[in-house]
Amino acid sequence: MSTTNFFSSRQQKLIKAMQQSGFDTLVITPSPSLFYLTGLHFHIMERPVLALFTISMPPIMVIPQLEIRKTEGLSFPIQVFTYSDDPRTWGNVISEAFNQGSKARCVGIEPLHMRFLEFDYIRKAIPDAEILSAENLLSGLRIYKDNDEIKAMRKAVDAAQHALHTTLPLVKPGISEIDLAAELTIQLLRYGSQPEMAFSPIVSSGLNSANPHAMPTNRKLASGDLLVIDWGARVDGYISDLTRTFAIEKIDSELSHIAEIVKNANIAGRETASLGGTAGEIDKAARKVIDDAGYGEFFTHRTGHGIGLESHEEPYIRGDNSLVLCPGMTFTIEPGIYLPGRGGVRIEDNMLITSQGAECLSNLDRDLLILG
Amino acid sequence: MSTTNFFSSRQQKLIKAMQQSGFDTLVITPSPSLFYLTGLHFHIMERPVLALFTISMPPIMVIPQLEIRKTEGLSFPIQVFTYSDDPRTWGNVISEAFNQGSKARCVGIEPLHMRFLEFDYIRKAIPDAEILSAENLLSGLRIYKDNDEIKAMRKAVDAAQHALHTTLPLVKPGISEIDLAAELTIQLLRYGSQPEMAFSPIVSSGLNSANPHAMPTNRKLASGDLLVIDWGARVDGYISDLTRTFAIEKIDSELSHIAEIVKNANIAGRETASLGGTAGEIDKAARKVIDDAGYGEFFTHRTGHGIGLESHEEPYIRGDNSLVLCPGMTFTIEPGIYLPGRGGVRIEDNMLITSQGAECLSNLDRDLLILG
Repeated sequence: MSTTNFFSSRQQKLIKAMQQSGFDTLVITPSPSLFYLTGLHFHIMERPVLALFTISMPPIMVIPQLEIRKTEGLSFPIQVFTYSDDPRTWGNVISEAFNQGSKARCVGIEPLHMRFLEFDYIRKAIPDAEILSAENLLSGLRIYKDNDEIKAMRKAVDAAQHALHTTLPLVKPGISEIDLAAELTIQLLRYGSQPEMAFSPIVSSGLNSANPHAMPTNRKLASGDLLVIDWGARVDGYISDLTRTFAIEKIDSELSHIAEIVKNANIAGRETASLGGTAGEIDKAARKVIDDAGYGEFFTHRTGHGIGLESHEEPYIRGDNSLVLCPGMTFTIEPGIYLPGRGGVRIEDNMLITSQGAECLSNLDRDLLILG
Repeated sequence: MSTTNFFSSRQQKLIKAMQQSGFDTLVITPSPSLFYLTGLHFHIMERPVLALFTISMPPIMVIPQLEIRKTEGLSFPIQVFTYSDDPRTWGNVISEAFNQGSKARCVGIEPLHMRFLEFDYIRKAIPDAEILSAENLLSGLRIYKDNDEIKAMRKAVDAAQHALHTTLPLVKPGISEIDLAAELTIQLLRYGSQPEMAFSPIVSSGLNSANPHAMPTNRKLASGDLLVIDWGARVDGYISDLTRTFAIEKIDSELSHIAEIVKNANIAGRETASLGGTAGEIDKAARKVIDDAGYGEFFTHRTGHGIGLESHEEPYIRGDNSLVLCPGMTFTIEPGIYLPGRGGVRIEDNMLITSQGAECLSNLDRDLLILG
């Protein structure tokens, strides 16, 4: 990904998309899209960082003086404005940067990433401009993964699967969720994940497993628990996002039963995924299995989401999403059943659409493994 | 931190501060302040999460349906509005939540944390309200750490120091920055850091060390390098943030010389920190050492920043900050010299102001250790 014209070519595609959508300027803050377009990464802190993409000029960046080294030796032209540590000067520097470009009239931003901090500077710098979401424009570029991106995601799946495999022998009554999550994180790093993961592993046991977005607690695993592990690695910027559910020693028969249903829902979802099919069909197929088994009300989320530089991005696998699946799209399939006060099950795989059809990138066993 | 009235008491203090500042409503998105006020943690994703704090009612939250378990069993009253995975319904749910409270006229937000996503929903839900930064109000509460918070920060310093100590034997020519950063991260977890660290370790060597905010690269350490390691742990939500600089085998005399100057600047900063003194005095004292040695232009950032739930918060240690240091304040002192094309040095410690004066929480050797 370091060829001379790699980022220039993405920026050219961006400009074409801007022209089609009527945007004359895009303002991007540190985000996966900024990394996608420039390879640049900034920690998000109290200092604003802005990248202005216009139709007619090379990108313009506004950064703190102490970050200047990051913008040297890039493979594409760029114009950089820097500011000192005195916040009273920041507004002027940002206005200057906007004055450098042609007049901004229709400006696109990323609502999921831009903070009020930067938005407020922008609307003061260009009070007459219309500021709109450019989310669809950017996801429309990023949704098609190229070969390098797919290669990174395969590595991220491998790293995650190896890390879990190495951690599983520790799963037994008495170990806490937090300790298990820490060990799994250590193994993710050992198997090559970048330290800045998309998310920390979810390790939720017993009643906690009924919460799809639980944080690991000090609760110790106990016989009879369901154990949900939702984890992933990041390699070359790209992530994997997997979930498997385990039984700690002997569990009651309804919990085994919902594990079987979720496994079948996961299979139905994966088998429905196809080149030329829609995102919505996958959700409907997986949901039907759970509905038919009488547990529909306990499947409280959509069936999946896109993955790439972010752990949640397009395409979203929702029943109402008629998006047609095309080569290069990558997403999760992760049906679940969550019984309040009892426990939950989720089984999550990572899918890729190719010109040959749908491919599942992950292959860990999906049967309810009994551990302990 | 789990006593019945712990968060209620912080919420009471918040209400008092709101009354003094003229805010009738505060809208907080998932952020360190939300954790501070409620103990709640949410991943920041494509779904908006809002907490409304008003003067007259218990907190009101708007969350996705699948997060509902997180709001059960809290030690304080709360009113929860949930929404489904269909984004078209979100705006209405958010408006309903606002209608539940008394009319919002003067609304505070966190510009460094609220995204345009949430801001846009808010301004549509309450188009007549004035929306202002409540940053000073919230940092005015969070800047005074209590005993539990300080205890957590001491643990975070200890975990970080032990982790570095265990990692240092690996430092020698041939190991890459990335591998060293991964091993240090593993050791941070082994010594008790939470997996969601405030930041990934900075490991920058040779020319890269001249970039204060470098990301670890594949560059392998080589004889003659300066090596900057900037790392920290998170324990019970609270962070440490330390930096030490090392020499790989024999380095040239100017690099040794700047290491000595930075050490003296660090000492001057720490010795100037005092109960009743100002944040600005610390910056001036550290900067004077570097200025007097003729390297002022290469010390491109302020001398430090507050730490707590965030790695950058109040008090900022800037020359123009006349804030008086009071018991419970915690911050870094981290002067540096960065010679472009040569290398850099930074030495960072964590300070606490107590009723007895200033205490340095970190005690790793600050002399330029020669490794390799």
